Amino acid sequence: MSFFRPNIEAMEGYVPGEQPQEKGFIKLNTNENPYPPSPRVLKRIRDAVNGDLRLYPDPTAKALRETIADVFDTKPDRVLVGNGSDDLLTIIIRSFVGPRGKAAFPTPTYSLYPTLCRIENATAAAVPFPPDFSLPEKLARTGAKVTFIANPNSPSGTMITPLELGRLARRINGILVIDEAYVDFAEDDCMRLVARHKNVIVLRTFSKSFSLCGLRLGFAVARKELIAGMIKVKDSYNVNRLAQVAGVAALKDIRTVRKNADNVRKTRARLTKALESLGWFVYPSQSNFVFARVRPPHTPEECYTELKRRKILVRYLNDGLRITVGTDAEIDALLKNLRDICAPRAFENRRKKR
Amino acid sequence: MSFFRPNIEAMEGYVPGEQPQEKGFIKLNTNENPYPPSPRVLKRIRDAVNGDLRLYPDPTAKALRETIADVFDTKPDRVLVGNGSDDLLTIIIRSFVGPRGKAAFPTPTYSLYPTLCRIENATAAAVPFPPDFSLPEKLARTGAKVTFIANPNSPSGTMITPLELGRLARRINGILVIDEAYVDFAEDDCMRLVARHKNVIVLRTFSKSFSLCGLRLGFAVARKELIAGMIKVKDSYNVNRLAQVAGVAALKDIRTVRKNADNVRKTRARLTKALESLGWFVYPSQSNFVFARVRPPHTPEECYTELKRRKILVRYLNDGLRITVGTDAEIDALLKNLRDICAPRAFENRRKKR
Repeated sequence: MSFFRPNIEAMEGYVPGEQPQEKGFIKLNTNENPYPPSPRVLKRIRDAVNGDLRLYPDPTAKALRETIADVFDTKPDRVLVGNGSDDLLTIIIRSFVGPRGKAAFPTPTYSLYPTLCRIENATAAAVPFPPDFSLPEKLARTGAKVTFIANPNSPSGTMITPLELGRLARRINGILVIDEAYVDFAEDDCMRLVARHKNVIVLRTFSKSFSLCGLRLGFAVARKELIAGMIKVKDSYNVNRLAQVAGVAALKDIRTVRKNADNVRKTRARLTKALESLGWFVYPSQSNFVFARVRPPHTPEECYTELKRRKILVRYLNDGLRITVGTDAEIDALLKNLRDICAPRAFENRRKKR
Repeated sequence: MSFFRPNIEAMEGYVPGEQPQEKGFIKLNTNENPYPPSPRVLKRIRDAVNGDLRLYPDPTAKALRETIADVFDTKPDRVLVGNGSDDLLTIIIRSFVGPRGKAAFPTPTYSLYPTLCRIENATAAAVPFPPDFSLPEKLARTGAKVTFIANPNSPSGTMITPLELGRLARRINGILVIDEAYVDFAEDDCMRLVARHKNVIVLRTFSKSFSLCGLRLGFAVARKELIAGMIKVKDSYNVNRLAQVAGVAALKDIRTVRKNADNVRKTRARLTKALESLGWFVYPSQSNFVFARVRPPHTPEECYTELKRRKILVRYLNDGLRITVGTDAEIDALLKNLRDICAPRAFENRRKKR
């Protein structure tokens, strides 16, 4: 007999991207920013590493919410911070969906959404994207309590316009979560929809453009009635002291964030061209990664495996390769190896060995 | 119409102890350690504040789990770390209880347990403690999927023996969670029960004896089958990089932790005597706080309010005062003010003013 709830007993766990503890890998697999946080931010965090760590963090994260409200032209009571935006996704599913409730999302997308449904014993309505990753028409008719849209989407890197998502928000009766983890690498964003729609929650993270994956910090922006209810569901002290300090410091140094995002976009353009010159199909990316269809006879799995052997990690998902945009040097190394792996002779040699 | 689930809509949120952002308070209200983490631990954290913060933490917290296993003479696959032990409590209720499942606990105790039940839409079986806070006989017969015991208990500070809890573990069919947040200030602990009982989960935290409330770090020890299932429910990256580093460093400097705990115990003995000399009843404490019944005609609320006016925060709970053991100087200030507040003349003056 198991002590676990049947839905937990039956499920597979979510598998995060590899985080090798061994050094020497070029990590292009989990969409981390290749550039470190600015020295100013690091200094502010270091200064906060003092005896006050014996004290609990501010459970309301007042200073951080005020800074977020300032920068994004909203109000602190429209902001909720989380231990990464994964924490906020959990809070959302527990607040609005619940067991036997329905959550919808287009697919393929962030694979945590269906995992969260299984943990909650909720119904997942996965609506396939059309081949061009445009908004699936059916998504407006699922009757879901929460609809998740990663925008830009992962693994595709593609984006749906704020205009279309505003229309979707009006058409559905439930909550629309626009998960903008990658939005600082895009040309537009949906933050303005919060003021117009009472059912929109925009999620942001400090992990990607702010280079702070390691500290765990994300935030939600929504009408204050939604935020007030979600506060009941969150852990009181869900965001640690140093993440709160780092968030404020990073927002005050947003020029560094923008500069790094610009560099990522430049490298992304170069990477896209180079992959296309291998004959691969690359989806138009608005994020800090690209998603590519490998040209036959090569397969994405083969490329993934060969790259890993050469200590370059990428992600093999949905019959394609998802490659994080690294530094220029990292991308040079990737391309050199890919050209080698995909050269006709190398391919033939590997086939013979099998 | 509300977007929220009915149980969330109907509930009140959990109210954590006050965390004044204003300086100058003597904080004896949320059971923080009055002594800071050791300089060695702070240095290790500061050293980890570097460009690697752009990377995700190790989702398995391997180094930390290995160190915990070393120190507590268990195995890494019997250890799960969390974003504070509150995170682990949430993981437990989601793993084993679920909606309409039942969770039991003696009462009064940590008020988060019933809050977690409401969030999960689970049934809370609150079994009253006898006046001496010994184990309620009925707790073995609730049929709950999870039974929570804070041991030492809050607000009482009292403790139930490992022998009695071992018996309870054998008598119940569900999981027994022994929440040992305060155990480093006690004379015994229940860690050894994990090896003997397949249904026991022991929770520990780095917040109290390790002086690391601000970083959010707790851990669970249980049979590996339980840990493996709970891993499916946790957020992948639930523990941030700096907390992982701090945990390892703090465990390697456990002498400082023990020395601070000794000091707390000494001050606790002195505080207890002094409160008794005011004619108050003080429960025998095995934790870093004491719980006292105020001598009439004074009331706990009155003492709380007067102390707060004098910038000393304590907690007014269950018709008593819960006072965290601070430094000797803090406790001297508390006692001086309490003697003043409880002096017959001062009391009469306050009554007249009303």
